[in-house]
Parts: sequence; C-alpha cells; structure tokens
Amino acid sequence: MADSVRILGFAGSLRQGSYNRSLLRAAQAAAPEGMTIEVFDLISVPLYNADVEAQGDPEGVAAFKAAIRAADGVLMVTPEYNHGVPGVMKNAVDWASRPPRDAPLGGKPVGIIGASPGMTGSARGQSQLRQAFEFTGSYGMPQPEVLVFRAHEKFDAEGKLTDEATLKYLGAYLVALKAWVLRFRGS
Amino acid sequence: MADSVRILGFAGSLRQGSYNRSLLRAAQAAAPEGMTIEVFDLISVPLYNADVEAQGDPEGVAAFKAAIRAADGVLMVTPEYNHGVPGVMKNAVDWASRPPRDAPLGGKPVGIIGASPGMTGSARGQSQLRQAFEFTGSYGMPQPEVLVFRAHEKFDAEGKLTDEATLKYLGAYLVALKAWVLRFRGS
Amino acid sequence: MADSVRILGFAGSLRQGSYNRSLLRAAQAAAPEGMTIEVFDLISVPLYNADVEAQGDPEGVAAFKAAIRAADGVLMVTPEYNHGVPGVMKNAVDWASRPPRDAPLGGKPVGIIGASPGMTGSARGQSQLRQAFEFTGSYGMPQPEVLVFRAHEKFDAEGKLTDEATLKYLGAYLVALKAWVLRFRGS
Amino acid sequence: MADSVRILGFAGSLRQGSYNRSLLRAAQAAAPEGMTIEVFDLISVPLYNADVEAQGDPEGVAAFKAAIRAADGVLMVTPEYNHGVPGVMKNAVDWASRPPRDAPLGGKPVGIIGASPGMTGSARGQSQLRQAFEFTGSYGMPQPEVLVFRAHEKFDAEGKLTDEATLKYLGAYLVALKAWVLRFRGS
Repeated sequence: MADSVRILGFAGSLRQGSYNRSLLRAAQAAAPEGMTIEVFDLISVPLYNADVEAQGDPEGVAAFKAAIRAADGVLMVTPEYNHGVPGVMKNAVDWASRPPRDAPLGGKPVGIIGASPGMTGSARGQSQLRQAFEFTGSYGMPQPEVLVFRAHEKFDAEGKLTDEATLKYLGAYLVALKAWVLRFRGS
Repeated sequence: MADSVRILGFAGSLRQGSYNRSLLRAAQAAAPEGMTIEVFDLISVPLYNADVEAQGDPEGVAAFKAAIRAADGVLMVTPEYNHGVPGVMKNAVDWASRPPRDAPLGGKPVGIIGASPGMTGSARGQSQLRQAFEFTGSYGMPQPEVLVFRAHEKFDAEGKLTDEATLKYLGAYLVALKAWVLRFRGS
Repeated sequence: MADSVRILGFAGSLRQGSYNRSLLRAAQAAAPEGMTIEVFDLISVPLYNADVEAQGDPEGVAAFKAAIRAADGVLMVTPEYNHGVPGVMKNAVDWASRPPRDAPLGGKPVGIIGASPGMTGSARGQSQLRQAFEFTGSYGMPQPEVLVFRAHEKFDAEGKLTDEATLKYLGAYLVALKAWVLRFRGS
Repeated sequence: MADSVRILGFAGSLRQGSYNRSLLRAAQAAAPEGMTIEVFDLISVPLYNADVEAQGDPEGVAAFKAAIRAADGVLMVTPEYNHGVPGVMKNAVDWASRPPRDAPLGGKPVGIIGASPGMTGSARGQSQLRQAFEFTGSYGMPQPEVLVFRAHEKFDAEGKLTDEATLKYLGAYLVALKAWVLRFRGS
C-alpha cells in the first residue's frame, strides 16, 4: 500500500540474550499500523575483506545487502562498546556501503536506537555509527532518540521489554520513523 | 634491555595488498634502535560474540590477547571506512578490552597511524579509534601524527613505502612512540 | 517562487581574511538559479550565557535567530580547530538550538562545507559539527561533501576562489543543497 | 613540595548556578592532600579571533594562558550541549592551543569531568572535548571517569554536591588525577 513501509532491522550484538536484540524484537512488536520490521541476524555477515569481496559477496553478505535494498528503511539497534560503535555493527555498515556508487545504504532512510546496562544508553555508540551516514549518503533521522539506559531493569528474564516509559518512547519513535521513511518515498 | 621496547602492531584491513598493511611493514623496517615491532594479522580474530567468549576465547583471540600482554606497547594502523574506524579494527579492540578489569589494552601505551587513498589520510578513522582508549584505560600518544593521504602515490607496486617525506615522518613518529612507551615502563 | 530557496550562510571564523569566509563568498557567487545565500557575520553573536539569555536574547543573537527562521535552509562553513569544531561555530549553534522546543535550527535543512590549510580540509570539524544536528533536529545533507584542503593554494590574494576543481565541486554541492532544501519545503 | 600538584580548573558554562561550576567547586573542596585546584572563570575569555590575537592576546586570554602555564595540570568541567562540547569550552581550548609550537596546553596533563541534567552525564561533550588533546599534545587521563547524570538530584539549592556516591567517585578521580599529573612531572 502507498502508505505502508518495510523496515529492515538489525542489532549490533551477536549475543543471543543481548538487550539490543531484545529491543529490536520489542520494536518489531510495537510497529505502528502500516510498518513491518523484518529482522536480519548479523551472525551471517563475516568480517569485511576486500579480497573476498573481489571474488563476490559471501552468501550472508549478499543476503544482507539484498534485504537492505528490498526495504524502504533501516533500523539499527546498537550497543556501545568502548565508548563507540561495536565492531560487529560497523562491520555490517562497511559491507553495506559497497560498492560506493550503488551502495545498499545509499539514499536509504535510517533510524538508530540502542540500549546499554550503564547510564549513557548507548549514546556514544549511536553518535559514532551516525557519522557513517555522511559517507554512505543515508538519511539518518535526527529526532527523536531512544537511549535505553540501565537496560537490565527494563527487560524481564525472557528479554521482553516491560518498562512502560521505554515502551512509550519506542512507540513514538517508530511512528516518527514511519513518517521519516515516507518522506523519502519515491525520491 | 632496560631501554628497548617491544611493540605489537596490527592493521585494520584484511586485504593482502592494503596500504595500511604496507605502512605497518614500513614501520617495522623503520623502527629505531631499541624498538622491535611484531606484526599480528587480524584475520585470525573473529567477530566478537559474548556467547562464544563465555566458552573461552577462540584460539586466534587468545593469541591476540597474549601478544598484546607480552608487548610494551601497541601500534594500530588504521584505514578510514565510511568516515570512521573500520569494523575489523574496532572488533579487535572490542576483544582486547575484555575482561574489563584485566583487559590486555588496559594501561598499555598505544600509537595510531593510518593511510587512505583520499586526502584525509584516515583522520576520522583515527579519531573514532582513539575514543576507545578512554574506556580501555590505554595511553594514547597525542602527538605527532602520521596521516598518509593519497596513499596510492606513496607506495610502489610491491607495497614498499617509497615517499621520502612520509618515511621521515614515520621515523620521527616511531622515535616518539619509543619515548612514550618508556615513559610508562614499570608503571 | 515555489522553487526558489533562501539560504542563510555563516562562517566559523571571525578573521576577516579567513579561507572559510572566502569560501562562503564564493558559494554566494556560485549559487544556482533559484537559490540566494545571505551571509550572517558571527562577530555579533556573543558567548552563550544562560543568565544573559534569561534576560532576553542579546541584539546580535536575536538577529541571528530571526535570520535562521526566515531562511529555508542553512549553510555552515567551518574550519577545523584542534581536530574539531571551532568554539566560535559551536557557540552559534548553541544559541540557535534554544529554546529546545522551538529552536531556530529545529527542522531546518543544513549543509556543511569547510576549508583548511592542511590536508584534511576541515573533515573533523565538519564531523563534530554535524553531531549537533541529532539534537537540534536539523536535517543535515549527507552527500556530497566539500572539503577544501590546502586552502592557501585555492584562493588568490583577495580571497577569491580560483581553483577550477573546487569551483566545480562547490557548484555541484549547491545544486544538491537546493534539492535537499526543496525536499523539506512545507514539511 | 616534590609531591604536591597545582591544578587549574575551569567550567564550560557561564551560568552562575551551573551544575558544572558547582561540580568544580566540589572538586576544589575534595582535592586530596598535596593537590590544590585554582578556578579560572571563562567569562573573561572572549570569542577567538585571529585578527585580535595578532594584536596581542586580550587581557583575559593572557591571564588564562598564564594560569595554565603556571599549573601542573588542568581540570576541565564540561556540560554537553547539542550532543557535543559547548562552544564556550571549545573556544577556551582554541585560545589555549595557540601558538601551536608553544601552546599552554601542550604537554599538559588534563582531566575531564562533567555533569548534565539528563542521563548521559555529559558523555558526548567529554568525548568531543578530548579529541582536541590529540592536536594540542596534551595528556588526557583515560580513566576513571566522572559523569554526573541527573545533576539536579545531586546538588542542593546552594549548589553543594550532596550525593554520597558522586562525592566518592569524585574523590577517587582526584586521587587518580594527582598520580597522573605526577607521572608527567619534570618531563
């Protein structure tokens, strides 16, 4: 339908019980009418190696890039490691920025959210990740933000987001992301 | 000897013909008296996965972390991908930041240099990488800098650094790095 | 007219002979049909002080904020000082981000260009400046980029941009900025 | 005395009731034996202007630079404005980085702490500020960190730091800063 959007979401942590994977599932469940979020697991994306790329994208990479191309927008869910973007997440972006003149991320609307057990809620990870969009020519949504701090208090033992305030922020974020993606529709 | 230092060097590109791998080899050859640079190939360091880590560090990671611990200092040679640190390089730092209270990078003197085919010479990659040292508690040398811009003009077909000015900067950098590492000796 | 855009431009250097002021004048002269660039001199914007703000915006600040509100988009021309955004430039953004719920920069399309005498062409200054747009909710154009490196070779003694390649990049940049601003027209 | 250190502290907010000014006063009061913290008020440092500088540093700037030169180390207390370093703080660093070959900040040990009413506790402001030290050749202490989040809950109506946990972190930070400064003594 004209007003429905397909989002590809992926989390920058490979840990099965990761708060960021849980946050992505929560986003999937909280998507507003007219938005669907498909999840891609970065475990199938190997480390970037231009020699390998020259032989053709590995299967996981090809699937990842095809999934981005098929989507109207992207939702990146990132932890903060060592005051910055996790290598796992940046590595996925590095693949998806190739080839430069026809990159899957080029001209794609993108949202970033994230969670961390500490107080900063992945703030520095999000900032570093966002810098990549200047180069890839992606359209990063500037506001609102979702920074899930003290994540261990916001999810239950099964990884379900139970914090009411965070659920509310997340819902408002996804409504804004839908409008952001529609703004670039057909452009 | 009291005044000799052992440096572990690694490059943030897995491509065999990478300018940054070439730059690391050039540094190895240009090391001043009393400094040796051992090269570690990040191809043996997989993507960080806390579930895997919980079962014990994979062989390549264990070797990487042991090599850092055995060295007096570290030399990171980084490209710039998408206006930031390559995922390959940040991923290595993510492993070497674990466990937090006894991380291989903790309290370790570190230098960063880098090369790129464009004009910025890896500047933004170096800046993002350096932010990690706040968290790992590593001692990043602030000056001088080595930013090899237009790298394709500085190396010959065999990857040998042939540009005289760059060789001079690199030599001065390594002398400064030796002094920086000695400053933290025994601390 | 429906398709013409008014841009407010300002440079992050107060030096009269600044390369970035010269670059802004060059942009003014190179603006494509349907784009006008008005220049605001940051010399009239004092250091941000919330106690002063509480008494009402100083005259220069009020004029600055009104000029941003009256424009369809903003062009920031920034040097790089100490690997980051100059205090002069960030200070102007700090004023223009107030009040948070109705900030002059909120929802405003923004372009960044810059010049430096060194090789990085203001790259790190631009990156830091761009981070502010996440908070102000401004729409930073991701591509293309204008990084004027070795600026002393690109301008003549009167501060006129004479380098043909740079003039070409600048022209293409302004065409892209016009389209970027029109994309958000009426939104 | 051989083991006592003199620190120059300044806050990146000009507001009299600023949490960061309050935090600096708390640091002054909490300084361990053998450390004194002198406070410099950035209100006397105008916006950087190279044309003005060419005529000689303004009085406030000359006093600021002399105070840094006279100190063994520096403590910067920074808010976060618009996801980055405040213009007021960066502007002070821009002055203190001049002239490049004999800058007051060159070779100076530096600590950064900060406070914000939000959850990130000035994290992104600290990260941007720290990038300047690469260029100025200052020695930024990597760990520990003091990020005072929800600052409005940590100070009383008179601006006195009353939160026990924060006081404890701050005390430990200052002990570490003293050791960091002594490490570079006489170098």
